Amino acid sequence: MKAGIVGANGYSGVELIRLLLNHPYIELEMLVSHSTNGQKIQDIYPHLTGVLNHELEPFDANELAKRVEVVFFATPAGVSKTLLPECLDKGLLCIDLSGDFRLKTPEEYEKWYHQAPAEAARLETAVYGLAEINHKQIEGAQFIANPGCYPTASLLGLAPAVKDGAIDLSTVIIDGKSGVTGSGRKASIGNLYAEVNDSVKAYKLGAHQHTPEIEQELAAMSGEKSAITFSTHLIPMSRGLMCTIYATITKGYSEREWLDLYQSFYEKSPFVRIRPQGNWPATKEVVGSNFCDIGLSVDGRTRRLTVVSVIDNVIKGAAGQAIQNLNIIKGWDEKAGLSLTPVYP
Amino acid sequence: MKAGIVGANGYSGVELIRLLLNHPYIELEMLVSHSTNGQKIQDIYPHLTGVLNHELEPFDANELAKRVEVVFFATPAGVSKTLLPECLDKGLLCIDLSGDFRLKTPEEYEKWYHQAPAEAARLETAVYGLAEINHKQIEGAQFIANPGCYPTASLLGLAPAVKDGAIDLSTVIIDGKSGVTGSGRKASIGNLYAEVNDSVKAYKLGAHQHTPEIEQELAAMSGEKSAITFSTHLIPMSRGLMCTIYATITKGYSEREWLDLYQSFYEKSPFVRIRPQGNWPATKEVVGSNFCDIGLSVDGRTRRLTVVSVIDNVIKGAAGQAIQNLNIIKGWDEKAGLSLTPVYP
Amino acid sequence: MKAGIVGANGYSGVELIRLLLNHPYIELEMLVSHSTNGQKIQDIYPHLTGVLNHELEPFDANELAKRVEVVFFATPAGVSKTLLPECLDKGLLCIDLSGDFRLKTPEEYEKWYHQAPAEAARLETAVYGLAEINHKQIEGAQFIANPGCYPTASLLGLAPAVKDGAIDLSTVIIDGKSGVTGSGRKASIGNLYAEVNDSVKAYKLGAHQHTPEIEQELAAMSGEKSAITFSTHLIPMSRGLMCTIYATITKGYSEREWLDLYQSFYEKSPFVRIRPQGNWPATKEVVGSNFCDIGLSVDGRTRRLTVVSVIDNVIKGAAGQAIQNLNIIKGWDEKAGLSLTPVYP
Amino acid sequence: MKAGIVGANGYSGVELIRLLLNHPYIELEMLVSHSTNGQKIQDIYPHLTGVLNHELEPFDANELAKRVEVVFFATPAGVSKTLLPECLDKGLLCIDLSGDFRLKTPEEYEKWYHQAPAEAARLETAVYGLAEINHKQIEGAQFIANPGCYPTASLLGLAPAVKDGAIDLSTVIIDGKSGVTGSGRKASIGNLYAEVNDSVKAYKLGAHQHTPEIEQELAAMSGEKSAITFSTHLIPMSRGLMCTIYATITKGYSEREWLDLYQSFYEKSPFVRIRPQGNWPATKEVVGSNFCDIGLSVDGRTRRLTVVSVIDNVIKGAAGQAIQNLNIIKGWDEKAGLSLTPVYP
Repeated sequence: MKAGIVGANGYSGVELIRLLLNHPYIELEMLVSHSTNGQKIQDIYPHLTGVLNHELEPFDANELAKRVEVVFFATPAGVSKTLLPECLDKGLLCIDLSGDFRLKTPEEYEKWYHQAPAEAARLETAVYGLAEINHKQIEGAQFIANPGCYPTASLLGLAPAVKDGAIDLSTVIIDGKSGVTGSGRKASIGNLYAEVNDSVKAYKLGAHQHTPEIEQELAAMSGEKSAITFSTHLIPMSRGLMCTIYATITKGYSEREWLDLYQSFYEKSPFVRIRPQGNWPATKEVVGSNFCDIGLSVDGRTRRLTVVSVIDNVIKGAAGQAIQNLNIIKGWDEKAGLSLTPVYP
Repeated sequence: MKAGIVGANGYSGVELIRLLLNHPYIELEMLVSHSTNGQKIQDIYPHLTGVLNHELEPFDANELAKRVEVVFFATPAGVSKTLLPECLDKGLLCIDLSGDFRLKTPEEYEKWYHQAPAEAARLETAVYGLAEINHKQIEGAQFIANPGCYPTASLLGLAPAVKDGAIDLSTVIIDGKSGVTGSGRKASIGNLYAEVNDSVKAYKLGAHQHTPEIEQELAAMSGEKSAITFSTHLIPMSRGLMCTIYATITKGYSEREWLDLYQSFYEKSPFVRIRPQGNWPATKEVVGSNFCDIGLSVDGRTRRLTVVSVIDNVIKGAAGQAIQNLNIIKGWDEKAGLSLTPVYP
Repeated sequence: MKAGIVGANGYSGVELIRLLLNHPYIELEMLVSHSTNGQKIQDIYPHLTGVLNHELEPFDANELAKRVEVVFFATPAGVSKTLLPECLDKGLLCIDLSGDFRLKTPEEYEKWYHQAPAEAARLETAVYGLAEINHKQIEGAQFIANPGCYPTASLLGLAPAVKDGAIDLSTVIIDGKSGVTGSGRKASIGNLYAEVNDSVKAYKLGAHQHTPEIEQELAAMSGEKSAITFSTHLIPMSRGLMCTIYATITKGYSEREWLDLYQSFYEKSPFVRIRPQGNWPATKEVVGSNFCDIGLSVDGRTRRLTVVSVIDNVIKGAAGQAIQNLNIIKGWDEKAGLSLTPVYP
Repeated sequence: MKAGIVGANGYSGVELIRLLLNHPYIELEMLVSHSTNGQKIQDIYPHLTGVLNHELEPFDANELAKRVEVVFFATPAGVSKTLLPECLDKGLLCIDLSGDFRLKTPEEYEKWYHQAPAEAARLETAVYGLAEINHKQIEGAQFIANPGCYPTASLLGLAPAVKDGAIDLSTVIIDGKSGVTGSGRKASIGNLYAEVNDSVKAYKLGAHQHTPEIEQELAAMSGEKSAITFSTHLIPMSRGLMCTIYATITKGYSEREWLDLYQSFYEKSPFVRIRPQGNWPATKEVVGSNFCDIGLSVDGRTRRLTVVSVIDNVIKGAAGQAIQNLNIIKGWDEKAGLSLTPVYP
């Protein structure tokens, strides 16, 4: 199957390239870039020297329709809402890694993204591609809104508890910590090495655009709409993302029972690993892989559950999850091209 | 005034050396080390070459009493509880940077530190040295239990809200993030560069020994005992510590009013800086100084307050705060030797 | 083909595991560890959770001979010289990643490694496994001494010039820069995060044990014995190694001709990439892969050639090169299991 | 004495602020910035919150002449050559941290800086401010060209050997390694955290503008003009710079005699520290201070001397050295405001 990537020159774009080169059923055919078209990808990214000789091309839906079957959009917010519908209409399978089609309510997009939303009719047709939860809906879909990096770690960390009704949704607090690739590859003073190195910084408190996405999907899981607190921090690391999640317990499980609940919930999910009691994951232990590792702590003193959920934001939080979704759509082995052992250390 | 340092060869010890060399009224007289006595401090720490020619000496209370007026204990947990009482009895002014005398209840120490507590009578006499809160009790004291690094950032971040009764204590959740110096200078696989670099890791969930210290002091502020949730994370940085603190609001203040509350609470505290609205501190912005910087976010949707509080764990969280306490005890300018601008970047 | 790893619990050991899991013709059968036998590898390295369920076993040559065909020794200096001969005698194919069998002259080993050398007769039988240079000798060999990390980058950076006689060997200076994994996974104060972070340090000047290895192989290439200057520096990074190599030019080539010389020398070497003029590699551009990237600079003012050669020390400098050697021995595709795109960023 | 800083919003500018706040005889009066004038410095650099309330002002030589006695130029290449002469003509004491007035030959500036040089007559009047070498010329000077960061470490590392005639100048090779602050605070993809982190990169090989500066000063020391090889590498650290220097020995000194030569050469230089035999400095051991630490290695096999010279590039390589020069000009204690112990770790 031939594939195209729109936004191939960003961090998610080159990770898609790296992973797809390793995929048994996919051939990379067309790399699209707005800002760097005409250049060779290996001139922008020397690590691809000798690996890939493609030239970046301008966006052209006709050309894509002629040459590929599936298009990945690894574009900044606000781009795919314009370009992707045309590809859909030409029958292309579309997987959008941006946030443009994740929120079902256009008003929410406008409020949190501070720009005009995609057409409401299109929002309806996008399947939210959190494979571990929406596996059935993804099978055979044409159009996937790939989850954001923070929502992926948050929702996987909360799903077993929420679906079981074992926590009070209104008490959920998510403290997110992300590496720098999360904010893309654009020149900015705030992301310079000397500014980020050896420091941790809180950002967008109360205003992060992933908040409504998490709330929407928690509501879908629980049938109950609830506002959550979601905070984000920039960590001096390239890849990796952790969500430390706090919630008040409503069922009197022991820590052992909590672990069993999580373990059995993810029994058939090849990419979620539950850590044994008293063991919590470091981001480094999943970086380079499509795994989401989860550790739990249950505190009788405060009746609170603490969940630690980690992913590689560029893989499970973006490119890897997109490929996982494609595998499910096509009925291939869910792990095709994704049997990656974390690169440690 | 002549000073001695017990545990001079650890990270807090060498930071005390660095700061005291810059203090107008103190002269470093005696450096004590158990494991490295007989060596020159500059042979262990080449950055002190030509700065300080002292030899490390074994602990000897008589010798200390003869040569110095004040002793700083920068020792691991479990050491000062044995050594310090003897110094007190000889009339020495003692400032303990370890956790041995912070908890007033011996049972709590035993439970969280997993070792025998100091003598109960001694615990009574130690003043908890959080200068911004206990200024009066510190003036003229003989014996200070210097606060832990996490409790310093947590309590300074919570004090104005707690003393005002503006938050519900039972909802307090503290998500702590610390650099590696926090765990001292001992060889361990877990703290090797290759293990810590480019990663974030949760540790001691539900079991960190700073938990009862924070609860004890919150109870002292509020008159109300309440269990809190306190989590800690290891961040790939040498110095710096952040506490992101969550609590449910009980008073209907606007964000502006919250900022005013904090600003006026710390009006006379030279080392606490409240950030303007929409601005939250990075640890790098205080590293190298004795500052605690605090930023707030108030969320009407969830009725929660989020406080971001950062310090240099080795300075405000250890050596700097110890000197601040000494300044207050002696009636010197609180900032003597501590007028340090953060080293940025 | 079934494989065993002796020293499976070090950084090179776990990297062998990661790469062999991805190898089409190899099955991991036996993991041997002296210090941690009896434990499960995934309990020591949680990133292997669910990936590999093997228990670490004690060394037993009979057991190895019964169960595997090839043994990789990823052991510290001084171990394989004792254990490996027994495996050889039982007909096992042996690839030694340590330095025990690289130097042909026992006296040199003693002088630079400060311990007794392997038996001289055994040293004779080991083939120095620098695939790009010794391809022929490796084919069908039973026993490989896998090159050191610094020698790999140095020799690949020098080979085309040396074999062409285009530089004066007596002027060769190699300035090496390595990440921390180069010194293995043992607890030491010098490798603690807080000591290595945000700093660069020179070490073992004039005394690094890779010096005689480089000199021996340069002599083999050139037919001329010459002492070189080799310096090493510790860089705050986990993986990656750079050698910046200086030498006086003896032939009047243009920069273009130098590049052609290198390009054509490595035409049939799938893992060496020559960078275009004015472009020098960063270690990050090869990390995660088996590539060695080389950039050149020729200075008419000083008549000196500068070569920048980078590798991932754990892959091309250890585990990857070992597998490459096995591929060559067995006549498999040299790239089997090693078609790895660098993990960027 | 009142001081002004032109280019106060760059990394050298804010370091000058930090150091001058600590200077006994200087008062900061005027902060000048082209790009950010009108803003408060603490709004750009929150670490200065509450420390300094100055507003950045546009450049105005008359205003400077009215309000200050000394002006520091911490501006990018090409700025001071235009602005500084006017200040000189008004009788201001001028210290230029940029490269505009360091090279005595305008053609060399044009060749290496790729822009028009300063007026030749002005170049004559600038004193090259390497205090340890040009102390006499600096005393009472009006106009200082403050040395570049690499030349500072290189020249201090070479001076004793060169002045003694103990090395062959034509064999000098300098392998430089610098932290990221060396390239200033401008948004660029190449300096983004994710690009620099966990990697080392060679840059500007054969073309670094500090090359002619080093050659000029070596010629001044030796009376002999010689081309050197100078290479630069970007290291993942904020501050710190190391030069590893190689040269062929022409005198048969023992290592002990080499150390004595260096030790006695710098006997009266309070900021140069020579390390004992077998001990080479890490950059972290000088960061935060005005020290230059030097370690030596002498190799009988190759008859080469290796010198390791480290500084904090923002202090001894820029702001600290500028203040040291001012201290000398004014006849103050050379260490006034510069008695800084390195911030370790």
